[in-house]
Amino acid sequence: MAQWTEAAARLRAVDGAAALAADERQMLLTKPAGALGRLEALGSQLAAIARIVPPPVPHEAAVVVFAGDHGVLVEGVSPWPAEVTAQMVANFLVGGAAINVIANVVGARVVVVDVGVATPIPGTGVPAAGASGGPIGRFVSANVRAGTGNLVIEPAMTADETSRAIDVGLSVALRLVAEGVGCLVTGDMGIGNTTPSAALIAALLGRPAEEVTGRGTGISDVAWAKKVSVIERALERARLDLGAELSEAEPHAVVAELGGFEIAAIAGLVLGAATAEIPVVLDGVIALAGALVAVALAPECKGYLVAGHRSTEPGASVAMAYLGLEPLLDLGLRLGEGTGACLALPLVRAAAGVLGEMATFDDAGVASGSVT
Amino acid sequence: MAQWTEAAARLRAVDGAAALAADERQMLLTKPAGALGRLEALGSQLAAIARIVPPPVPHEAAVVVFAGDHGVLVEGVSPWPAEVTAQMVANFLVGGAAINVIANVVGARVVVVDVGVATPIPGTGVPAAGASGGPIGRFVSANVRAGTGNLVIEPAMTADETSRAIDVGLSVALRLVAEGVGCLVTGDMGIGNTTPSAALIAALLGRPAEEVTGRGTGISDVAWAKKVSVIERALERARLDLGAELSEAEPHAVVAELGGFEIAAIAGLVLGAATAEIPVVLDGVIALAGALVAVALAPECKGYLVAGHRSTEPGASVAMAYLGLEPLLDLGLRLGEGTGACLALPLVRAAAGVLGEMATFDDAGVASGSVT
Repeated sequence: MAQWTEAAARLRAVDGAAALAADERQMLLTKPAGALGRLEALGSQLAAIARIVPPPVPHEAAVVVFAGDHGVLVEGVSPWPAEVTAQMVANFLVGGAAINVIANVVGARVVVVDVGVATPIPGTGVPAAGASGGPIGRFVSANVRAGTGNLVIEPAMTADETSRAIDVGLSVALRLVAEGVGCLVTGDMGIGNTTPSAALIAALLGRPAEEVTGRGTGISDVAWAKKVSVIERALERARLDLGAELSEAEPHAVVAELGGFEIAAIAGLVLGAATAEIPVVLDGVIALAGALVAVALAPECKGYLVAGHRSTEPGASVAMAYLGLEPLLDLGLRLGEGTGACLALPLVRAAAGVLGEMATFDDAGVASGSVT
Repeated sequence: MAQWTEAAARLRAVDGAAALAADERQMLLTKPAGALGRLEALGSQLAAIARIVPPPVPHEAAVVVFAGDHGVLVEGVSPWPAEVTAQMVANFLVGGAAINVIANVVGARVVVVDVGVATPIPGTGVPAAGASGGPIGRFVSANVRAGTGNLVIEPAMTADETSRAIDVGLSVALRLVAEGVGCLVTGDMGIGNTTPSAALIAALLGRPAEEVTGRGTGISDVAWAKKVSVIERALERARLDLGAELSEAEPHAVVAELGGFEIAAIAGLVLGAATAEIPVVLDGVIALAGALVAVALAPECKGYLVAGHRSTEPGASVAMAYLGLEPLLDLGLRLGEGTGACLALPLVRAAAGVLGEMATFDDAGVASGSVT
């Protein structure tokens, strides 16, 4: 039995009473009512997640970058060769990527997890922690398979591979929490991975491919039309009924059909965050596809999700609307790696900190405003 | 001769060539072109400010909270009593306010400057640095006068007081830069200060009062109408010609007529940032009024401005449009103190860090994407 099925069965929803208690505390703090805007609602969500007011400030945080490759790349859905996935993993490990710089700025660890990279990762001197046991360093080697199958002609993953990838994410989450991490941030690296993400969003939410398909890291109109057609053919091949309700579909089977390894692992990370009752900050469309999968597997996950950054991918907006999420940032990032979500981490810390560290009007001897 | 007039005469505009060089470097870094969205333009602005690529990462930053009171409060423009200004200053000094929590989260110093508080600041055990000399601690006592005059019936400040307040901001900026601060963040505390801010924006940009007047920390329709009328009467009394071009008005005289001390000091802080050639992150409408004043006094200031957070005050939008600014964050904050701007500080550091710390495609041995 996969680890994730047990975890999913034990999950509990966030604590609405703690959110209400946080809302009440917001009114006592030395500021006009509502003056901290979205930080106030976020703080109350963090209280609901932690089941206590004030919620802890997640000083220790980790962005987990799951890397995997995609058989669909042979269909020409990306301008980048598959080798870039492995090359970028190597770049993450020497600290040369955008996510390294941004994580450093906000004070988060970067943990890179090979869950399905297809080509050798350049530079072998990096100590890799295995999929289980021992402290997690910068790199976890947990390769389930060297890339997915081409979803146009075959299932991306087997059912067993899918469960193993979910378990990788769950296991990494729980180990990081055991090491003191109080907030997880999703990251991803996988050339071509906006295609399975859009396919998953289309399948899980019953939307046409053209509505949820975007430009990824930048493609032309012709390439976009090809990408839409690739997703349509994949959905047809897998006989996924786009009209079906999410609860009637078999979400695990849908992920196996469409992929990919890093998306399944992100779903596992979300399950892990919900298990540990800590927030998980979502990056762009790949993270949202993973979160949709997690919520399909275990609806209790939903309250633990924080949307970090507005993705420019249309599938992201569709998924966020379904999940009831509104992103904290909108800076036009379309890079992935966890960059957008990582930039939102200070907002999460500030929202929690306000509830625990601000003085009340009574404490501070500050007069309250009268109603006019 | 006021210190600020000499500083203003010596300012130089930001370096457009450095911005172009930064734009070119963005294309070499290990990410798809443009994938870091607004961080890329911000990074290029920081290069223009520092006149070098990469620009330094402002690890040391300070939010400077200028505090002052407003004679116009007797007109009933705010639900809060004037004493709250002094009480909140005391709250800042013991670390109990929102700005303390947020500055702590993002790693910025909080420096509180009394430039015109009207009532005694509770708790006298706080060591105060004078307006000049010695290292700056948490508090600078540089009170020009115990609150402004009521702008409806008299000039808010004299010409000399106005220059002294601007000089306070300039001097604090230069001393902080001398102590190693690489980015300044504007903060303010002054019950009633959205009224002079709106009046200044109306006067400097020739807009009707009702277009730039907002709800401050929260007032009713009736109170809002009264606030608009207060501003209209002040503009009439001061015979400020709303149709006049900004360059034809005498900006220093306009500030003296309308106030306030903290707004003039913010203008001085902006002049100081431009003098030291470092970025200054603006908070809400009070900061924008101060920035408008600084740009009116010395147009070269403009390129050093970064808008941190979208204020809900309509005057802020008018001022930002004039200054060509687009805020980095939009979280519904309407507190002041520098809270919104402070939350944007990690974005400034990330934008600078990306240019200096990311690997290029060549460095990292990563293949570039082909055009499709």
